[in-house]
Amino acid sequence: MELLKEKIQQDGQIISDHILKVDSFINHMVDPDLMLEIGHEFARRFAKQEITKVLTIEASGIAVGLTTAMALKVPLLFAKKQRPSTLEQGYYSSNIYSFTKNQSVDVFVAKQYITSDDKVLIVDDFLARGEALRGMASLVRQANAELVGIGIVIEKAFQGGGQQLRESGVRIESLIRINSLAGGKLDLID
Amino acid sequence: MELLKEKIQQDGQIISDHILKVDSFINHMVDPDLMLEIGHEFARRFAKQEITKVLTIEASGIAVGLTTAMALKVPLLFAKKQRPSTLEQGYYSSNIYSFTKNQSVDVFVAKQYITSDDKVLIVDDFLARGEALRGMASLVRQANAELVGIGIVIEKAFQGGGQQLRESGVRIESLIRINSLAGGKLDLID
Repeated sequence: MELLKEKIQQDGQIISDHILKVDSFINHMVDPDLMLEIGHEFARRFAKQEITKVLTIEASGIAVGLTTAMALKVPLLFAKKQRPSTLEQGYYSSNIYSFTKNQSVDVFVAKQYITSDDKVLIVDDFLARGEALRGMASLVRQANAELVGIGIVIEKAFQGGGQQLRESGVRIESLIRINSLAGGKLDLID
Repeated sequence: MELLKEKIQQDGQIISDHILKVDSFINHMVDPDLMLEIGHEFARRFAKQEITKVLTIEASGIAVGLTTAMALKVPLLFAKKQRPSTLEQGYYSSNIYSFTKNQSVDVFVAKQYITSDDKVLIVDDFLARGEALRGMASLVRQANAELVGIGIVIEKAFQGGGQQLRESGVRIESLIRINSLAGGKLDLID
């Protein structure tokens, strides 16, 4: 994923020791070609896992999730942050705390769209402390589905979420891993 | 868009006289092949307009927006419903009232990503009373960009938003137009 690395080096903005802003190509404005490459890369890495569904969370996971689902030729399911009035037929829910936003949200998926037959790949744009991923993994568990792995565009390794999840036995594939943003300097792993 | 019509007829659920639920293929679970076709169809209809940017609103507009942006080979910009802490360099905002959710939200786009040079195509999954579209059109106007048109997957024509917007001079292309959902019966226009 040289294209992704170049984009981050050129257009990523380091806002603080913890925040890398990628608003110009990932999570506000979206570069379609880059997203297609990201989707293909996740599909390549998980090609042997017979994935039946890609799961992500609205809103900024949807673009990554859709191109991954396209490449794997399976449906995308995105967890919702509001229980829609039309989601009356039963749902799984999970509470997710966002350190960035300093608030927690409940997320929902309708029970009928994730079952014990599913082999699920979770994808998201960022992995920091892993709260959103733990919430999504809980949804998969509640459905008795199989969590095949997690695909992450940018892992902020210094925030520890990835390590915790890997130690719990989850396979995580991160396209970019950041060792540090300290002093306004982007220090990548590898 | 026969595929879309078939999907709606087969899998759409009429919840009330005003609500058609398409959660199984558009706005909770997403069918990637259908989304690709939708994106290509919008690109075909607006092929001559030299569009430079596709604008939508999180969350359920993103999948439609991304495939349209792919087909047009331009960036996707999605308006955010929360002003992110990292969006400090100035933004345009607009207030949108949702009759479905009975609440209003402010939506934001960063000023730097939409300029007076842009020819903007707005896309969204649904058009009902047109509140979200008016909000997005306002963002385009604030930026002095050109609003080339609007692409809608499903227009609930009986709610009048499309008529109002067309009368104001906006070109709207809706892939499916619903005349009525009364009595649990899907009555399509054309």
